[in-house]
Amino acid sequence: MIRKRSGNVQTEGGIMIKILKYGEVENTELFSRNDPLNDVSETVAEIITTVKEGGDKAVAGYNERFDGYRTEALEVSEVEMREALAQVEPEFMEVLERAAANIRAFHSRQVRNSFIINEQDGVVTGQKIIPIERVGVYVPGGSAPLSSTVLMDTIPAKIAGCRDIIMVSSPDSRGKINPYILAAAHVAGADRIFKAGGAQAIAALAYGTETIPKVDKIVGPGSAFVAEAKKQLYGTVSIDMTAGPSEILIVADAKNRPEFIAADLLSQAEHDRNASAVLVTDSDEFAVAVRDEIEKQLSQLERYDIARASIDDNGKIVVADSLMRAIDIANEIAPEHLELCVDEPFEYLDKIRNAGSVFLGRNCPEAVGDYFAGPNHTLPTGGTARFFSPLSVDDFVKKTQYIYYSADALDRAAADIALFAGREGLTGHARSALIRTESRGAESRGAEAVGTDEAERLKAEEPKQSEQ
Amino acid sequence: MIRKRSGNVQTEGGIMIKILKYGEVENTELFSRNDPLNDVSETVAEIITTVKEGGDKAVAGYNERFDGYRTEALEVSEVEMREALAQVEPEFMEVLERAAANIRAFHSRQVRNSFIINEQDGVVTGQKIIPIERVGVYVPGGSAPLSSTVLMDTIPAKIAGCRDIIMVSSPDSRGKINPYILAAAHVAGADRIFKAGGAQAIAALAYGTETIPKVDKIVGPGSAFVAEAKKQLYGTVSIDMTAGPSEILIVADAKNRPEFIAADLLSQAEHDRNASAVLVTDSDEFAVAVRDEIEKQLSQLERYDIARASIDDNGKIVVADSLMRAIDIANEIAPEHLELCVDEPFEYLDKIRNAGSVFLGRNCPEAVGDYFAGPNHTLPTGGTARFFSPLSVDDFVKKTQYIYYSADALDRAAADIALFAGREGLTGHARSALIRTESRGAESRGAEAVGTDEAERLKAEEPKQSEQ
Repeated sequence: MIRKRSGNVQTEGGIMIKILKYGEVENTELFSRNDPLNDVSETVAEIITTVKEGGDKAVAGYNERFDGYRTEALEVSEVEMREALAQVEPEFMEVLERAAANIRAFHSRQVRNSFIINEQDGVVTGQKIIPIERVGVYVPGGSAPLSSTVLMDTIPAKIAGCRDIIMVSSPDSRGKINPYILAAAHVAGADRIFKAGGAQAIAALAYGTETIPKVDKIVGPGSAFVAEAKKQLYGTVSIDMTAGPSEILIVADAKNRPEFIAADLLSQAEHDRNASAVLVTDSDEFAVAVRDEIEKQLSQLERYDIARASIDDNGKIVVADSLMRAIDIANEIAPEHLELCVDEPFEYLDKIRNAGSVFLGRNCPEAVGDYFAGPNHTLPTGGTARFFSPLSVDDFVKKTQYIYYSADALDRAAADIALFAGREGLTGHARSALIRTESRGAESRGAEAVGTDEAERLKAEEPKQSEQ
Repeated sequence: MIRKRSGNVQTEGGIMIKILKYGEVENTELFSRNDPLNDVSETVAEIITTVKEGGDKAVAGYNERFDGYRTEALEVSEVEMREALAQVEPEFMEVLERAAANIRAFHSRQVRNSFIINEQDGVVTGQKIIPIERVGVYVPGGSAPLSSTVLMDTIPAKIAGCRDIIMVSSPDSRGKINPYILAAAHVAGADRIFKAGGAQAIAALAYGTETIPKVDKIVGPGSAFVAEAKKQLYGTVSIDMTAGPSEILIVADAKNRPEFIAADLLSQAEHDRNASAVLVTDSDEFAVAVRDEIEKQLSQLERYDIARASIDDNGKIVVADSLMRAIDIANEIAPEHLELCVDEPFEYLDKIRNAGSVFLGRNCPEAVGDYFAGPNHTLPTGGTARFFSPLSVDDFVKKTQYIYYSADALDRAAADIALFAGREGLTGHARSALIRTESRGAESRGAEAVGTDEAERLKAEEPKQSEQ
């Protein structure tokens, strides 16, 4: 790993988080992000083609080759589910249920109604909200069982009314999916669960295999391979978003306790070496105090190596000339998670234009949202909060529009439609409206048929001919 | 061009639209779509890199090389706009205004409210709807001025509250954008308009140049180059959708007049050689009557060559054993446009699960929706109506969530959060909650500081340690 040392303070203990003064460094340095380069596109393209053609056998082959396990059946059986539930302590099941209740309560508010408009005679238009039928949820395997992700990705699909929720996850070397993941799947209501991970699982969901059903949309975080597979298959299926490394930006004044803010920054840093933890404050002294506190707490973290690398490479403390400037910086960076550790945080909320999830006040560390409060934790990263949204019930429905025109309504509108179509050079479009209204004109004049002759007459009347 | 002749009837006049009987041919043949292969990915990647680095000069270079025009200024001036408006006849301006009023009325119903939840003491969560700040609208240049697309892509952005709507379109060889496009931009309310087309225009919007502003989202149809550029830049900006050839599926019983249905099929076919027009009916006689009527009307179309190729290569009449079967086929194909030319069409509407826009009854040809009725005409193609939606106000906003916890609320939830985080192996997350609640415990016991000692004590108490 190459450590970027520019701007960092060298101490006896090694590199510390860098402190940058707003106005004294280039804005590009303030706003820059680590952009990990993992070009796995060719490998992923090959995996996708192989799974599309080879089905289950190809999936099992990649499972063995990349993840080192072999399974008799790809699908998790009812027996396996019961065994898993028996392994999870009742206290944790209760926590899962309480978190799920909060997530359900929040996401239920996202449910939308269809609408219908009938304000002109003989004209009805409307929009229907229809659940996406079959959804795939990818859950990363490995040592840390992301039960929270299972809840966050499955519950909104359930609330949306999706018919089939298909979960995939890598088992361990004995071919067992972590019981905490299965427990969360049980609580959230996943319909079927398959043992597969990586790009091969994404390809299997996109195309379907003999046993894994083809889905319409795939959600869930994953490795660079998973992200690339989702990107390549976008259009064949829908996906949630292209997720990058996790990130937090904390706006905090000097009234905060440095140890709390340091703990929040480190909770982000422990995710991943590429994760980024940024503090923006209006106080030089507070910046130094948090920096020192980070060093103290770092050594006590179980995931020290990961957090150390994240803080050194991607951590930043920015000292701004005011809290309002700090808000401007936050809007420019458009962070995934934004903590506003200030007095009267709701007064600042309206000034936030770009952020995935905002944590308000001095008692709302990001972990409250990661696990428990109810809003989703699948959030736009890498500045995409400028245009992407947290995962929500909206991601599991689609809209269909409809239009009804009566004969009279079409007769009133046909000339406008024909003129418009004619100006776009699409006279066949014009004809499709005029042939109906003209036939009624012809009928009322006693004519019998609207065939070739009528069509020829219409053609002569088409708007392009009457241009001046 | 290679014509697929399988299944087609050979006549003296050449190929006619093919008639397929449900149950007598493979479903794959019924459901298959033309998938035009245009691999322009390398060219587009090169254009994107060049524009990212070269800015305006690179854009102007490609404009000249690919589209054969040179302009002094990339931006359309106020003088040019006034000149264009003077060229458009007042009757057409009135049609534009009437269409725009319908589009505004429909899309205004899509506006969503933010929500806030405060059902537990000291806990507030919510979701805010925030307009995307800057949107790019791509409008294809060329001989057919797609004024309707200008309205459909701009008005929802305006209703969403987007601050800047930046339009790009290719001018003609004299460097002038078609006056009908500019007139529509004026009616719809585009803020600034630039002369650029193709992949270079998309790259300019995604990265910004000296004169073209960087946008957050790009919408609008275009060539294979435009579609590929949008796909490659997805993530750097948001895009509307990956659009394929336009398509219609008409479900019609034998009570329809064959000449109307033929006109509707041809209105789709005249778009593009790759467009597809499909009729599903429950009557053999009606199938033949429509086929014959298509042949009659085809010869009278101004865009004969295009419509002929589309009908021969991608046209299809399917005879199903019932109207309900026809609906099943429609759901399987998930067409962009679906006409239900039947009695009581609203009774069938609830059975439609996959379609972009549905046209109900015998007096609602697709052209009603293309230009006038109000619902959007930018619709999911290629079967993506299974998971994508028509363009709407939703495409021009993003959502931000927020969470507030009081000290008491955090104290109540901290143990749950810590247990959950501990099971995921993220003890730094657990610490960020516990350090706050434990400090209050310490304070109430009269302790003064929560520093290293406290952190060490917390560590010993972390949930992972207490696993049984």
